Amino acid sequence: MSMNSYLEAHKERFLEELLALLRIPSISASSEHKGDMIACARAVAASLMDAGADVATIYETEGHPIVYGEKISDPSWPTVLVYGHYDVQPADPLELWHSGPFEPVIKDGKIFARGACDDKGQFYMHVKALEMMVAENTLKTNIKFCIEGEEEIGSPNLSTFVANNKALLAADVILISDTAMISMDTPSIDSGVRGLSYIEVEVTGANRDLHSGVYGGAVANPATVLARMIASCHDEHNHITIPGFYDDVVESTPEERALMAKAPFNETEYMEDLGIDSVYGEKGYSTNERTGIRPTLEVNGIWGGYTGEGAKTVLPSKAFAKISARLVPNQSSAKITEKLLHYFKSIAPAGVTVKASEHHGGEPYLTPIDSKAYQAAAKAIETTFGKVPVPVRGGGSIPICSLFEKELGVKIVFMGFGLDSDNLHSPNEKYDIFNFYKGIETIPYFHSYFAS
Amino acid sequence: MSMNSYLEAHKERFLEELLALLRIPSISASSEHKGDMIACARAVAASLMDAGADVATIYETEGHPIVYGEKISDPSWPTVLVYGHYDVQPADPLELWHSGPFEPVIKDGKIFARGACDDKGQFYMHVKALEMMVAENTLKTNIKFCIEGEEEIGSPNLSTFVANNKALLAADVILISDTAMISMDTPSIDSGVRGLSYIEVEVTGANRDLHSGVYGGAVANPATVLARMIASCHDEHNHITIPGFYDDVVESTPEERALMAKAPFNETEYMEDLGIDSVYGEKGYSTNERTGIRPTLEVNGIWGGYTGEGAKTVLPSKAFAKISARLVPNQSSAKITEKLLHYFKSIAPAGVTVKASEHHGGEPYLTPIDSKAYQAAAKAIETTFGKVPVPVRGGGSIPICSLFEKELGVKIVFMGFGLDSDNLHSPNEKYDIFNFYKGIETIPYFHSYFAS
Repeated sequence: MSMNSYLEAHKERFLEELLALLRIPSISASSEHKGDMIACARAVAASLMDAGADVATIYETEGHPIVYGEKISDPSWPTVLVYGHYDVQPADPLELWHSGPFEPVIKDGKIFARGACDDKGQFYMHVKALEMMVAENTLKTNIKFCIEGEEEIGSPNLSTFVANNKALLAADVILISDTAMISMDTPSIDSGVRGLSYIEVEVTGANRDLHSGVYGGAVANPATVLARMIASCHDEHNHITIPGFYDDVVESTPEERALMAKAPFNETEYMEDLGIDSVYGEKGYSTNERTGIRPTLEVNGIWGGYTGEGAKTVLPSKAFAKISARLVPNQSSAKITEKLLHYFKSIAPAGVTVKASEHHGGEPYLTPIDSKAYQAAAKAIETTFGKVPVPVRGGGSIPICSLFEKELGVKIVFMGFGLDSDNLHSPNEKYDIFNFYKGIETIPYFHSYFAS
Repeated sequence: MSMNSYLEAHKERFLEELLALLRIPSISASSEHKGDMIACARAVAASLMDAGADVATIYETEGHPIVYGEKISDPSWPTVLVYGHYDVQPADPLELWHSGPFEPVIKDGKIFARGACDDKGQFYMHVKALEMMVAENTLKTNIKFCIEGEEEIGSPNLSTFVANNKALLAADVILISDTAMISMDTPSIDSGVRGLSYIEVEVTGANRDLHSGVYGGAVANPATVLARMIASCHDEHNHITIPGFYDDVVESTPEERALMAKAPFNETEYMEDLGIDSVYGEKGYSTNERTGIRPTLEVNGIWGGYTGEGAKTVLPSKAFAKISARLVPNQSSAKITEKLLHYFKSIAPAGVTVKASEHHGGEPYLTPIDSKAYQAAAKAIETTFGKVPVPVRGGGSIPICSLFEKELGVKIVFMGFGLDSDNLHSPNEKYDIFNFYKGIETIPYFHSYFAS
């Protein structure tokens, strides 16, 4: 087929271009990377123009800029809005990387770099698919791009941008490649993502670090108090104990659960890959249910006191934790965040003060699998993979989904080509070159089927 | 009095010499300061020779060197062995210091620097007292110095040195200035120090940091597991729940407790100084009892996952804690360490692995208050303070005490001139110049009364 031949002819360049993008350390959480964020936005805009977009504009926000691009060929054609993000997670702990997070290396057919899969490698497939369709003159849709720089910090400025630019962003479907498949042998499509509530807790005891001998035993230790607070968040069955946490959860029916249980999953391989001797989670649910249909509460970071080499006999003045919940329909991020903040403040014992504040959140999102867009995605994947993709519930979160639907009035389709084993948010993030090319090959079929 | 006049004439130089010693960042816990440790040992040895010692020798160990010095005037005189340490605690968190920890500044009559009180400022009083007694020809005792460089890391090499050098160190009493007084208005002498068991716990879940959305809820979170472990170490009355922890504790009698309760203590001022609205500790005991006669268990440091700016949705691979217990007679550091290590390993749930290892320890120590040496110290303090010092039980630990007594067969007297508010082990450690001079003035009286 012609598209394959174009890809074949240009694939080395496509890869080089992606590597150049991966060399920009666009860490949105870290203010020292503000300049890199701007550089990355410019590179994305330039790549859209190079691919054949009519327009590529960098919109400033109160945070990091948003890149908008479009190729409007015929107003009567359906319009696809591609959403992605050029920001990446922080790279630490750096010492666990086998190569520099922003010095991409190819090994065993995989690209190792922060952002290789999440999401530079994935959104860039759409840029290259545009180039192919323009070059081959196979476009059947109008294509818009909205590539933001704040997904990993909860998209604090995208909502204002979307609300103010509804006409600009108007589309018939939103297409997102920021999720994973079960495997290349078992292609799948996420029918939903979980929501998120992310908070930070700061426990303060005395007004300074103290000698643990002179004061130990008589003054509240914020590290111990924080540990007790965290321990109190789950019961012995790993149910979350925060009052009202499960109030709005839509329980899956036995039929839905039976259907989900049919998706191929090898728990032994799963444990082997992770190096664990047992899975661990809420009683009464399978591993896939725990990450798909159930809300969770996890400590993402904890620190306080002396954490250096050797020993220091100190009673810390402060201890901190970053804590986040993953949410399922119909939980509300705002309501859960409120419950979390209230909980940690309410259980503070005398002798400490507790500050709890929100980092960011996002709503859970479900998409219908009988829509034309979902069916176009399924057919595109079937065309290039030779197998009908399985619908699954994704465990991750894309904070902007429910807002997109609310503001723009259209559904989202997730067409992700990553793998759970791609080390997203972890050291040694990777993306298989095979998947990168497979995505570029598949995307034009989506546009074609969606337009037909 | 002649000693006072010598002190008066040389006090500026004495202070300058101490400041020079405080400028050496002799942090024993941190391997990068190995060179500073050697430089500091040399400075201590040189100061002993300058003060009039006959001998000052640096003994190499497997760790940091030990400085030995002596002034033997007459074999028939009693011999006092002065023990102290030239190593200091790590200085972090650096951002909380008002001036550089190793750039001593004088403010409001106080010397601010790491080690100002613990223990450079205190052992150096003995060096200067030696100089005074030599200059004034008032020596009535032989004086030996054993100034080590590993007190803050549990004195791992001093025991071998003491065992191999019993004749060298032979003395009639061991005199240590490494403790505090209630206040300059209420002079006190510690009649004991607590022991120490210090361990580190490492909890490992998956073999890498994971995306908290993709894996959250299905894989054990080592930060949460560690929090539960720590929470389980105390019950709701803040009694320690580790099996056997209290087995060997010698309970104080009601009479002893009633006597202790007479020491002046203002809990309101104590809370005000620390900026807390409530003390916090084991039910049934007063603040002074909690830090004096009761064993404790404190988290000295905890860390795991993402601790940087902003938010990262990561499920950590590992979480760590530094945990130490303060021990009272007749608890054994080795036995308690064994119980702690066993406890943390035994409560590890499936899905994580737990490593627990010892940092260091030290035995609790009590000294009789009716001994000639204690009475000499009490009388010396009464002479210079005009008040009889109160005997109190100190909360801190000097790991080597019980070993000294066992190997050398003599008792220890604690004659400390610090204050609890000196920020030992904390940012902005300080030592009042008044206390420094008061110590130098008092020490010769101890020697004089002990010899009489």
